[in-house]
Amino acid sequence: MSDYTDLTGTERSFGDAEAEQAVRQNDRQYVFHSWSAQGAIDPLPVAKGEGVRFWDYAGTEYLDFSSQLVNLNLGHQHPGLVQAIQEQAGRLATIQPAVANDVRGELAKRIVEHSFTGARSVFFTNGGADANEYAVRMARQHTGRQKVLARYRSYHGSTATAITMTGEPRRWANGVIDANVVHFEGPYAYRSAFHAESPEQETERALAHLERTIQFEGPETIAAIVLETVTGTNGVLVPPPGYLPGVRELCDRHGILLICDEVMVGFGRIGEWFAYQAFDVRPDLVTFAKGVNSGYVPIGGVVISEDIHRTFEQRPFPGGLTYSGHPLACATGVATFDIFEREGILERVRDLGSRVVEPRLAEMAAKHPSIGEYRGRGLFWALDLVKDRETREPLIPFNASGEAAAPFTAVVNACKAAGLWPFAAGNRLQIAPPLIISEADLVTGLDIIDAALDVADGYTTGA
Amino acid sequence: MSDYTDLTGTERSFGDAEAEQAVRQNDRQYVFHSWSAQGAIDPLPVAKGEGVRFWDYAGTEYLDFSSQLVNLNLGHQHPGLVQAIQEQAGRLATIQPAVANDVRGELAKRIVEHSFTGARSVFFTNGGADANEYAVRMARQHTGRQKVLARYRSYHGSTATAITMTGEPRRWANGVIDANVVHFEGPYAYRSAFHAESPEQETERALAHLERTIQFEGPETIAAIVLETVTGTNGVLVPPPGYLPGVRELCDRHGILLICDEVMVGFGRIGEWFAYQAFDVRPDLVTFAKGVNSGYVPIGGVVISEDIHRTFEQRPFPGGLTYSGHPLACATGVATFDIFEREGILERVRDLGSRVVEPRLAEMAAKHPSIGEYRGRGLFWALDLVKDRETREPLIPFNASGEAAAPFTAVVNACKAAGLWPFAAGNRLQIAPPLIISEADLVTGLDIIDAALDVADGYTTGA
Repeated sequence: MSDYTDLTGTERSFGDAEAEQAVRQNDRQYVFHSWSAQGAIDPLPVAKGEGVRFWDYAGTEYLDFSSQLVNLNLGHQHPGLVQAIQEQAGRLATIQPAVANDVRGELAKRIVEHSFTGARSVFFTNGGADANEYAVRMARQHTGRQKVLARYRSYHGSTATAITMTGEPRRWANGVIDANVVHFEGPYAYRSAFHAESPEQETERALAHLERTIQFEGPETIAAIVLETVTGTNGVLVPPPGYLPGVRELCDRHGILLICDEVMVGFGRIGEWFAYQAFDVRPDLVTFAKGVNSGYVPIGGVVISEDIHRTFEQRPFPGGLTYSGHPLACATGVATFDIFEREGILERVRDLGSRVVEPRLAEMAAKHPSIGEYRGRGLFWALDLVKDRETREPLIPFNASGEAAAPFTAVVNACKAAGLWPFAAGNRLQIAPPLIISEADLVTGLDIIDAALDVADGYTTGA
Repeated sequence: MSDYTDLTGTERSFGDAEAEQAVRQNDRQYVFHSWSAQGAIDPLPVAKGEGVRFWDYAGTEYLDFSSQLVNLNLGHQHPGLVQAIQEQAGRLATIQPAVANDVRGELAKRIVEHSFTGARSVFFTNGGADANEYAVRMARQHTGRQKVLARYRSYHGSTATAITMTGEPRRWANGVIDANVVHFEGPYAYRSAFHAESPEQETERALAHLERTIQFEGPETIAAIVLETVTGTNGVLVPPPGYLPGVRELCDRHGILLICDEVMVGFGRIGEWFAYQAFDVRPDLVTFAKGVNSGYVPIGGVVISEDIHRTFEQRPFPGGLTYSGHPLACATGVATFDIFEREGILERVRDLGSRVVEPRLAEMAAKHPSIGEYRGRGLFWALDLVKDRETREPLIPFNASGEAAAPFTAVVNACKAAGLWPFAAGNRLQIAPPLIISEADLVTGLDIIDAALDVADGYTTGA
């Protein structure tokens, strides 16, 4: 049996240095990469992906604990998704958004049926960034207000409004493009901005901070509060009890809309269809992408409440795009619902998270002084690595790179050398494997991280 | 033989009112549509597409003269594109942008090789709007300047910066989101903003207007001039001789970058790989989407000059997206190049445009007083319909809708009733069939338009 199929359809074996070189050369010569200094990167040529693993051209196998940017919830080459693509391609690859299409309507229906009470319709986009752009536009049009409140320690995408809402260093070089965005701080008990000493106090004080921000900015100028239900790349920050209901209450009091960005955590990542379902809160608009079809065909979207939908019954919505409700993408979304149900994905995620991951991380935390805190839910976790457990000083400084980031890079490299591709962000090793991962593979990955943390321990104070 | 395959894979025949009703019901209940008052639309349920035609559930056949928003350059269900999707889905549907991937590199290479001298690399996006957003970002980062000059009578997409650059009514309700955008007027000899009496004078005066705009805005504050090489939805405005070289010269003189938006006209629409190749001009950045793979899988991108690429050799580019360089999409892009070459698409477009379309439109213009001007190139044409040929008063007012648009709506309905789906915009019937159209089908479509223009003639002065 061959190892992989090349671009010409030829079956090939690993270890062909020439094949690898050809891929690397085209990449370095012609492909401009995201978020990168093009001369400072050496992207790994990947020959094949399957399930929770992918392989380079030498045949080196990686256990994928990042799901390719928390995207491939159903893993690489899931047969049900591949089949859905192949069948829909044979039926009707695409059609313009202005007509009615069977699979587009079916996916919208499934999403609404799995959404909050009062959800009415879905506006399909190309990805998560434009989903956030359109959600904000709907909020502005619906309320007649312009300002949007977003949090620090957040990522909302990279188009103009989305990057302005982003609350982390990727925004910096972009300046302020959308002037009607204001940032505030969210709860993060381990590094409390509010000098809180308990989760309850963190909730209370974070809400008071938000309320003051609303007052200072002017409640009647604020269209929406946008937040990642569970913050993703910026730390797997799970909202403490009462926080999201408290935000909802502030929104209700001031006629502000609540937009939950579920691009990363929607579709099972924490063991719910949508993460807000775990936190006793009803959003007005929900944005999604990635997990809706594991990114097999680009798609994103906004789930819209009945109230907001009604605003656009007689007044045109001023936005749109050619690929909205793309049939090929929608077919993989429908297949995702089928697969989730058939394979009991949500139940698996909850079970593996609470029975396998959480106790194992507790064990690691007891052993490794470099673990300041572990936190998460389902199959989404972060190890907040520290130099000193007492002071909670991060293993590397905020936004460190190069030499300053060396201790963390050493941990990441230890993972990779042992065959695990981690989801690394800031000073955190984050855990986000495909949701189809077997218990054995999950344990294997945690073993590798456990071992790699010895490297981190070597950088702790007193080590 | 069955007429179409339904969502469950069942072969069905046209005329099943229940099947149609199910699609319509899901659409009306759950799908939020682009640019629409949701309660005022009744989207046509489409059962099937093939080549240059599509069918509703009753079996009514439409000859597609819009290519589904000037998107399906290779028509519905092209076997070469369907096969590319099915094969790539079996190989590797997707992988994150941070690695090197064979088909991504191959498509980038093909695009660069068919681009301007000095083109270096491709940044892949999800569609045309974000391609324009990222091109502007590159221009701002490269020049250190913030302002962008864009034209009235333009469409550049609907995300924040893209919609702000747009120079037509779809922008209005969005206000100014990106404050560093300034609009100017381009050449349009038939309705000259410059009181010009010849194309040469139109060029000269349009350039003088642009030069004054640059002076008044401050040359050293302007990062880029962005324009559709041939304006699309806003009128198929072909640049008069000398205009684009003149813009290039102004750019060079002031260190301003030239961004050509080829989302609609790239990949063969006017008989060139890229439209700028017909107008003796070298851009710095070129944006594309749609035609690159006929929209079978969502993708867009930016072609980047060596100079601009070099800026990001050591300095990180502050932007990116999960689906950048999506393998499934890239595979259909590579197949597009193969198909274009195998089927001689560019040659066909040039031949059909000059031998069939242009003479026929000349004939129509001689016959129909409602044709104020016909203009275009390749398989991209507009009939600028008027109420009065002398005064050139448009058949309907600018941005008309409802009753005020009735004369134009009547023409569009006459086309549809005769089995042709036109590309209608403002007071213009525009012609943009798939590039694979046969001469016989092209003539059939032109016959239908010819007949429908009798309806328009009935609204002209003195009729």
